Amino acid sequence: MKYISLLGATGSIGTQTLELIREHPEQFQLAAITAGRNIGLVREIIMEFQPPLVSVQTKEDCETLQGEFSSNIKFVCGEQGLVEAAVYDKADVVLNAVIGSVGLYPTLQAIEAGKTIALANKETLVTAGHLVMAAAKEKKVDILPVDSEHSAIFQCLQGEEMQNLSRLLITASGGSFRDLSREELKSVTLEQALNHPNWSMGSKITIDSATMMNKGLEVIEAHWLFDLPYDQIDVLLHRESIIHSLVEFHDSSVIAQLGTPDMRVPIQYALTYPERLPLPSAKKLNLAEIGELHFEKMDMDRYRCLYFAYEAGRRGGTLPTVLNAANEAAVNAFLEQKIPFIRIEELIETAMERHHIIENPDFSAIREVDRETRRLVHTLL
Amino acid sequence: MKYISLLGATGSIGTQTLELIREHPEQFQLAAITAGRNIGLVREIIMEFQPPLVSVQTKEDCETLQGEFSSNIKFVCGEQGLVEAAVYDKADVVLNAVIGSVGLYPTLQAIEAGKTIALANKETLVTAGHLVMAAAKEKKVDILPVDSEHSAIFQCLQGEEMQNLSRLLITASGGSFRDLSREELKSVTLEQALNHPNWSMGSKITIDSATMMNKGLEVIEAHWLFDLPYDQIDVLLHRESIIHSLVEFHDSSVIAQLGTPDMRVPIQYALTYPERLPLPSAKKLNLAEIGELHFEKMDMDRYRCLYFAYEAGRRGGTLPTVLNAANEAAVNAFLEQKIPFIRIEELIETAMERHHIIENPDFSAIREVDRETRRLVHTLL
Repeated sequence: MKYISLLGATGSIGTQTLELIREHPEQFQLAAITAGRNIGLVREIIMEFQPPLVSVQTKEDCETLQGEFSSNIKFVCGEQGLVEAAVYDKADVVLNAVIGSVGLYPTLQAIEAGKTIALANKETLVTAGHLVMAAAKEKKVDILPVDSEHSAIFQCLQGEEMQNLSRLLITASGGSFRDLSREELKSVTLEQALNHPNWSMGSKITIDSATMMNKGLEVIEAHWLFDLPYDQIDVLLHRESIIHSLVEFHDSSVIAQLGTPDMRVPIQYALTYPERLPLPSAKKLNLAEIGELHFEKMDMDRYRCLYFAYEAGRRGGTLPTVLNAANEAAVNAFLEQKIPFIRIEELIETAMERHHIIENPDFSAIREVDRETRRLVHTLL
Repeated sequence: MKYISLLGATGSIGTQTLELIREHPEQFQLAAITAGRNIGLVREIIMEFQPPLVSVQTKEDCETLQGEFSSNIKFVCGEQGLVEAAVYDKADVVLNAVIGSVGLYPTLQAIEAGKTIALANKETLVTAGHLVMAAAKEKKVDILPVDSEHSAIFQCLQGEEMQNLSRLLITASGGSFRDLSREELKSVTLEQALNHPNWSMGSKITIDSATMMNKGLEVIEAHWLFDLPYDQIDVLLHRESIIHSLVEFHDSSVIAQLGTPDMRVPIQYALTYPERLPLPSAKKLNLAEIGELHFEKMDMDRYRCLYFAYEAGRRGGTLPTVLNAANEAAVNAFLEQKIPFIRIEELIETAMERHHIIENPDFSAIREVDRETRRLVHTLL
């Protein structure tokens, strides 16, 4: 039995993780959840799974829930609650599916507590990959990827030696606006941006897919997870999202992982690794039915955010923190309909240009740069 | 340093193996070769690689060569020579690239002598897979696939557990006549049949690709190599030969191996396994340049030989031996322009229909059925 602490239980990854726990009651048990303001869903999760620890965003919601449920369940709140769930002694695995760099501190705390980390929160590695990977190495803790692309790479690398690797090829669907020119991007709406062609995901990552920043964040995430220089990480446009990513070895052999777009497969792999459990409810891949797969070179002029991410990753220091914080603030502003779509990348570019890089930043430097960057973006709105 | 005994040195796989030995003089050395009648090429190989043991087909050629070269090289001939090369004490690995079921006896002898087997001779497993795999298991000898499809599957299975496997998907280019109807097949020529769209290979395997028998033999080969029932082995038409095969696990995750069509990659993998050596001369896969990959369901009515192979594999006993021997005899007759292309499958069907299956045949029963079947096909020409 694996006991899971699920950070971000009411989001897209969170609810799909709950489906897996429901499908495998002999293998998984929910030890703790954290959520934001979706208290209705939190109530349902508590009634079905009875997790002994529940963290919500506000003190008010926390007290309301405490009044409704038995004293067997402990209710906590805020950042302190998130950390309590991350280090909870009954949990073996912490599945971090919170959105944004707010996931960093609980990840570091969970590593400190020796938990296996199933990481869906890519911003954690983007903003402070050097700290996370160093801590994981010191504590001998596994960081298991949940992102479909990184799970694909991780699966392809099983039984292989890293020294034989020549290149990672991360596939990108291209997001909602892959067929629009830069000129056409100027007039797109929020509704159009939220309509991803292949994947049903949360709003932040769907916008990140439309700007291609999601792929940029994934490149930085791959750099840290697989300890590879950026020159050995490429992105390939692949509209169908069937090949989730590929790995090339120095004998020119390429291994790829494929499947229908279903996040439960990589989530489950992270939870069962190094085992695989059956997942009969997942749709089997039928390539004959799909008929064709397409591949295109990635155009860095068309997808500016991807270019910024490579730039931030290569220059390093606090620049990836700025990239990520500016993106989070700009995407929020777009989701609140305060700025047009094309303004997201302009804000990121400005924030990166104005930043003076701090080399090898510690946690407090990262947190400070993250805050400053968000403040800057707000003043630019 | 690995010492290689190369059975079938002058064929397509043989000469590509020699290229690899030439490219990696620190890793590989040629211990022995066997060849047929291409004495000119045998001379060149001897001069370049100086293998201490050389076997050719006829006594006459053997004596001629012995007169030409120093007494440091031992020359042998015929089936006895093939066996001497297979069990040669200076060899670590026997790469069996002979054509046809004549490869069976040296394979069994090499296993008996404890050699690692790199197997390009698929007829060995088709005609007597139960004997070969049982002997390999008893002697704790690895049978490493050289066929691109089986190498692909073998690579995909690294780091995975067989119990988690749900299905193998062997890809097929469709061969020279993939776009012809059965009616059109009646008038095709030998020259057309020898023109494979993707791979440059020997004539027997190129004809087997055109009839789709090659894929049928590969299905039986996969059954033995990976110990899977036929219901878990599927064939997928994939024109580009870029995905060399795929493996599906019970969580619905699919792992595939890809690359430009270059047999040196699977040959080298079999020779270096579980390591990978660089192969800088191989062309790297560029999916963006290729642009599209296509997949189609395999039509068993159109490709009768594939149907026969599944039938022979499922019914078992000596029926696969009959399938293979009838195919070898019929393909020879076609290569000698004694029969039209479409007659190949008719001869195989007749031979299978007339055969009374012997269950669990031993080596002498297999050899006898092989001979009888060839005799029958000759009488039917």
